[in-house]
Amino acid sequence: MPAQRRSEGQRKRASGTHRLKREPVATDSLLVLRAALRRFAEARDWDQYHSPKNLAAALCVEAAELLEHFQWLSEDASKVLSSEQLAKVSEEMADVFLYLVRLSDKLGVSLFDAARRKIDLNDRKYPIDKARGSSRKYTEL
Amino acid sequence: MPAQRRSEGQRKRASGTHRLKREPVATDSLLVLRAALRRFAEARDWDQYHSPKNLAAALCVEAAELLEHFQWLSEDASKVLSSEQLAKVSEEMADVFLYLVRLSDKLGVSLFDAARRKIDLNDRKYPIDKARGSSRKYTEL
Amino acid sequence: MPAQRRSEGQRKRASGTHRLKREPVATDSLLVLRAALRRFAEARDWDQYHSPKNLAAALCVEAAELLEHFQWLSEDASKVLSSEQLAKVSEEMADVFLYLVRLSDKLGVSLFDAARRKIDLNDRKYPIDKARGSSRKYTEL
Amino acid sequence: MPAQRRSEGQRKRASGTHRLKREPVATDSLLVLRAALRRFAEARDWDQYHSPKNLAAALCVEAAELLEHFQWLSEDASKVLSSEQLAKVSEEMADVFLYLVRLSDKLGVSLFDAARRKIDLNDRKYPIDKARGSSRKYTEL
Repeated sequence: MPAQRRSEGQRKRASGTHRLKREPVATDSLLVLRAALRRFAEARDWDQYHSPKNLAAALCVEAAELLEHFQWLSEDASKVLSSEQLAKVSEEMADVFLYLVRLSDKLGVSLFDAARRKIDLNDRKYPIDKARGSSRKYTEL
Repeated sequence: MPAQRRSEGQRKRASGTHRLKREPVATDSLLVLRAALRRFAEARDWDQYHSPKNLAAALCVEAAELLEHFQWLSEDASKVLSSEQLAKVSEEMADVFLYLVRLSDKLGVSLFDAARRKIDLNDRKYPIDKARGSSRKYTEL
Repeated sequence: MPAQRRSEGQRKRASGTHRLKREPVATDSLLVLRAALRRFAEARDWDQYHSPKNLAAALCVEAAELLEHFQWLSEDASKVLSSEQLAKVSEEMADVFLYLVRLSDKLGVSLFDAARRKIDLNDRKYPIDKARGSSRKYTEL
Repeated sequence: MPAQRRSEGQRKRASGTHRLKREPVATDSLLVLRAALRRFAEARDWDQYHSPKNLAAALCVEAAELLEHFQWLSEDASKVLSSEQLAKVSEEMADVFLYLVRLSDKLGVSLFDAARRKIDLNDRKYPIDKARGSSRKYTEL
């Protein structure tokens, strides 16, 4: 397991015995953001609020704030946002993303690996010949 | 703008005039997933359902399914999930992530850039000396 | 079916042939609010936005705004809100309630009957001897 | 304050000193459901899980399950649900409603009064001449 795949807890435990080992410089988006969020929370002593339960609630709240921008729009109108709308929407997407990265760090879950596994699972749940052009749930295919 | 930063719409428009130009191989997590989700939706003809409005609703639904796993747990219990719980939670996190990546593609938004901007903004909204150890919203600091 | 149990659509269709028949005065909370919301939307010509899909999204957004007030609180702290917090929370609860009443009107669903049926269903899904003191889902009892 | 307007906490505290005073029979929908939910939770010893924080999360989860039925439907399709779809949607609406009634009981909030106040407030925030035919938020009118 490369060092940058460690959860925050694993890293802290390990740091006691491997003081001289530096974290490799992360270049992947997810790892860069994870590191930035760790620094942000540590500097403000916010770890105490970041239980997985609270982070999941905060993520849900941000997802709804994102949806709020679309709730009265038609589907077509949602495809041609003004630059002002897009700026607001981007900020809400960022909020969702940051809480998701933070939660994944707290739980020691690799978002990328989980996403890859889910795509593979969906490939099996929604076979192309059955799912083509249908929005039905896999249990109803 | 490197080719892999183009939105799906930009890429399609461009492909007519630059048929010989191959997409560079994406290595960043976000770009790999974006490409996989494009292939997934195209193969099933699901673009027709993936309006930003619908994707925002679906993202919100998945965020709530994630929260469902935590709703009756204490904060402490949410920190020590069983491996069975963690597997389910990881899958819900993946669902949130995939819809977020898909939505960002449809809107031509770079999740990474938006997240970086938001961290910078939060740095200013929550100055360390005022926000330290407090869960109050920035408007109440 | 008493007149006040009719959906908005049924009422409008009926009103063409029974012009002289007055609606009985509603005294039940749900019927009073339903009537007030109909007047509110009609006066503003907002029926065009109140598709069930949009109302369900708006309801979800308001439920998240309610949750926002609790997201960083401990469970104990959530039991002893200040009067200022309680006023804000009450307003969010009202928003959820109003969209729920409006949606039920648009769909011709009696909230009260649906709630009664659900309590009866839960009585069977969560038998007292098995569910006592457990927060497990009925599928895991 | 009539007895049926008391919160659960107030009722319990009062019952020690007024043992002979019976609760009046509630006929209003909200009061009937509130009483039924109290009995349901007490019989299962579920009060321990019903902190306002947890109930707000559960309400949010149910609101999203309601939205799930609409997420891929067009607005028009959402107006003409099949009887099978309507039955499922009604059940989700009931879930939202029951958690809302339960939360209001725990917080000692009258849903009806809060809803009436909110309608009055909206009447002022969205004056008919300005809001007519527009879905803009009151801050943008």
